[in-house]
Amino acid sequence: MIKTGTLVYLYFPEDGAKFFITLKEDAHFSSHHGIIHHNKIIELNFGDKTQTHKEKDLMILKPSLHDIIMNIKRHTQIIYPKDAGYILMKLGIRNGDRVIESGTGSGALTVAMAYAAAPEGRVYTYEIREEFSQKAALNLEMAGIRNNVDMKVRDVEEEGFDEKDADAVFLDLKTPQKAIGYAYEALRPGGGLALLLPTTNQINDVIIEIEKYPFVEPEITELLIRKYKINPYRLRPEDRMVGHTGYLVFARKGF
Amino acid sequence: MIKTGTLVYLYFPEDGAKFFITLKEDAHFSSHHGIIHHNKIIELNFGDKTQTHKEKDLMILKPSLHDIIMNIKRHTQIIYPKDAGYILMKLGIRNGDRVIESGTGSGALTVAMAYAAAPEGRVYTYEIREEFSQKAALNLEMAGIRNNVDMKVRDVEEEGFDEKDADAVFLDLKTPQKAIGYAYEALRPGGGLALLLPTTNQINDVIIEIEKYPFVEPEITELLIRKYKINPYRLRPEDRMVGHTGYLVFARKGF
Amino acid sequence: MIKTGTLVYLYFPEDGAKFFITLKEDAHFSSHHGIIHHNKIIELNFGDKTQTHKEKDLMILKPSLHDIIMNIKRHTQIIYPKDAGYILMKLGIRNGDRVIESGTGSGALTVAMAYAAAPEGRVYTYEIREEFSQKAALNLEMAGIRNNVDMKVRDVEEEGFDEKDADAVFLDLKTPQKAIGYAYEALRPGGGLALLLPTTNQINDVIIEIEKYPFVEPEITELLIRKYKINPYRLRPEDRMVGHTGYLVFARKGF
Amino acid sequence: MIKTGTLVYLYFPEDGAKFFITLKEDAHFSSHHGIIHHNKIIELNFGDKTQTHKEKDLMILKPSLHDIIMNIKRHTQIIYPKDAGYILMKLGIRNGDRVIESGTGSGALTVAMAYAAAPEGRVYTYEIREEFSQKAALNLEMAGIRNNVDMKVRDVEEEGFDEKDADAVFLDLKTPQKAIGYAYEALRPGGGLALLLPTTNQINDVIIEIEKYPFVEPEITELLIRKYKINPYRLRPEDRMVGHTGYLVFARKGF
Repeated sequence: MIKTGTLVYLYFPEDGAKFFITLKEDAHFSSHHGIIHHNKIIELNFGDKTQTHKEKDLMILKPSLHDIIMNIKRHTQIIYPKDAGYILMKLGIRNGDRVIESGTGSGALTVAMAYAAAPEGRVYTYEIREEFSQKAALNLEMAGIRNNVDMKVRDVEEEGFDEKDADAVFLDLKTPQKAIGYAYEALRPGGGLALLLPTTNQINDVIIEIEKYPFVEPEITELLIRKYKINPYRLRPEDRMVGHTGYLVFARKGF
Repeated sequence: MIKTGTLVYLYFPEDGAKFFITLKEDAHFSSHHGIIHHNKIIELNFGDKTQTHKEKDLMILKPSLHDIIMNIKRHTQIIYPKDAGYILMKLGIRNGDRVIESGTGSGALTVAMAYAAAPEGRVYTYEIREEFSQKAALNLEMAGIRNNVDMKVRDVEEEGFDEKDADAVFLDLKTPQKAIGYAYEALRPGGGLALLLPTTNQINDVIIEIEKYPFVEPEITELLIRKYKINPYRLRPEDRMVGHTGYLVFARKGF
Repeated sequence: MIKTGTLVYLYFPEDGAKFFITLKEDAHFSSHHGIIHHNKIIELNFGDKTQTHKEKDLMILKPSLHDIIMNIKRHTQIIYPKDAGYILMKLGIRNGDRVIESGTGSGALTVAMAYAAAPEGRVYTYEIREEFSQKAALNLEMAGIRNNVDMKVRDVEEEGFDEKDADAVFLDLKTPQKAIGYAYEALRPGGGLALLLPTTNQINDVIIEIEKYPFVEPEITELLIRKYKINPYRLRPEDRMVGHTGYLVFARKGF
Repeated sequence: MIKTGTLVYLYFPEDGAKFFITLKEDAHFSSHHGIIHHNKIIELNFGDKTQTHKEKDLMILKPSLHDIIMNIKRHTQIIYPKDAGYILMKLGIRNGDRVIESGTGSGALTVAMAYAAAPEGRVYTYEIREEFSQKAALNLEMAGIRNNVDMKVRDVEEEGFDEKDADAVFLDLKTPQKAIGYAYEALRPGGGLALLLPTTNQINDVIIEIEKYPFVEPEITELLIRKYKINPYRLRPEDRMVGHTGYLVFARKGF
């Protein structure tokens, strides 16, 4: 039995087609492989196989965090798993942590951080554009993690955050240097600050601002991911790769 | 109040010195900054400041996952945060997951995976060398996650794993292709396999073996991390960087 | 006065259009900007401006080696300037050198090496496919360097080279390990061998073969080029970059 | 017969020791392998073998451009072959070209450019510090290319260049934006400008200045070089690599 409201991953071995659906009573899902009723899936377990009305095989899989993030409905540039994974490691987000994020964007990193902080922790995410916040809310529901997140619509560069003693703050903003002071106030001593910055000019602006506060352990990093063709007899990297997603800046509240 | 058995991070602002200690009743810690009794720390909270007998200021910080991994006692090459973060994202390890790992090594990735699977999940870690397993056990205790991990001494290339329906399997072995079949058996359908491989020859051997089983979504990846000097007026990468840690191979059990 | 037979670079400032033409008496060149007679260009000098019959401005520029290589007529994958430049530096090709190359391919590296060895040196280039050799000959003529190159049609993996005491040998072949012994014979002591290899498997095959001969100073290298967007207020790398062109292997004849 | 004044490369097969010497009549060279008289080498040819007074074998090799550059006496950070090769390709320097450079530094790129422009071309190199210019002169003599280079001591950021209609200008300066206008004046139409810049801030300053002049085809690039261990059975990159040498900026005089 899989509960309604759960995200499931439908995999069709015939052509490798993948779909993600949130189970609802009496709903049905249709694709080029035919129709399947949600109620039929609800009675199954992850890992089971079933068929559409066209007798096409499909597998009911538990989506990984990576699946969820790569398949999130994007209305903004979403964060790449290489960056999200490193941010989670550096901030050390784990069960029980209270984490602030701004902006929410499409909610991809919100999902990753909320899963890492679950079940006892919480993510507080701020977004300046109301329609983006609403769309991200649907993504959080799809990911099954909406209840672990507080969503707020606010221009944090001007108004800051409500929370205190946060374990971590993540910023992905237009003028992020404006929010550094607010982030400092919101963090617990030792708490980690992370920023995603597209340009080197922003790095400069942010570092100048960070140095005004007693932050420690600053780090400026970029991660390059390089994938290889799957051919053991002619092993070589893909011809093209992602050249840039963003720079990552980290620091930690010192006092 | 911080419980005994907890790992704490001591930070001396004067010179930036950092120490990690596991709190024990009646123990004391000494450094070039002087002596401090564990009992004094136990009465404090994370984020508090205190002093050594030499009246040197120190902060009692909650170590991040990143701190723990970077400071683990190494008797083998440990996994880098860039790789660990991406593995966790790709395998999508989260609260409740059951994860198999081999070898245990120094336990760095064991810690990261156990934190991601906590509180309800579990890591089953296999190591061929008994002394390494024992040393890793101390690292897991230091990290406060020993109770979420089953540690076994075994040559998994020959004897395989005990668990079934695992959510994920991670392999870092000498001849990892020998364990692919065992990993396949141990995984749930849709469960993720990840391998860390130092050489291209190993990639070839592993891909040939993976292709014998109905795995899907194979990926061969490497991550390069590049750090920048902290100077907003002369921004540029560090002169030297890590050139290679290992290749990452991923696949997912298809049927 | 520019001599007939010379390659010239036509640049139209209006839209940045570029064309490369080899000057011939009584010929004319036409584009969306109109017609211009070669005889009119022959009377000018590099750097001069003139007009088409539609009174569109154009500049008569001396093409750089980089222009020539990037604009060569490609019937095979051509070598990238990043790789060509490093090969020329490592092999140290300079005026007077005698250089062997196989295969000729589109002749891009042939052009670069012939220019480096000119005016007193010579390139001997071998190609297995006659039609490729003929097309490359046109490229060499276009580049104005045809007279400094000997072109031969031959399967060098089976039959080797005619020359002895060559200063350098460059190989870009399907099964390059078969030609290592022939390259060794053809080189002068201290002469450099370079190979471009798409796959890691080829590196392995080639190194095993190189180690059978008294080569010294082996090197396996890859070069990654990353371009940045031209915006000083939002400086950042291009979103996509070339992930792989080929691995470079070098060695030097020892005895 | 090798002429006096020529640079030769001594290679001792026993331990792989390498030395570069400029041949002088009646001089001798001594190392841990013993003494050898220059006169004995002068009677030989490149590729010959001989012995020291301790009967240690050595080979007399013709140094490649790469050897010369990697072994140049450094009193400043010298340019890496990966960067030098790409600069030569982009600027398309070849026999007959007239090239301006500033600063001279240790003369490494001066050597590479002078070889590319030889025998009919010329390099005009400017250096602000007289002692550096004098030391670089020795390196140019060592490299056998001193006669193809004009060396001047001048602060080009303030005073500019003497030459007109240069085929290329290369700048490696503290405040390179100050010399952009002078470079524009000195170039022929279509001539190439190249800059080596350690920091992103310098890129910004330089691009802003370049955009004040009718330069075309701007490019901002960085090259990463990654070397692999020479082991065909365990092929993998070196553990450490160079993380940064400098950014390269190119443009071309438009009108």
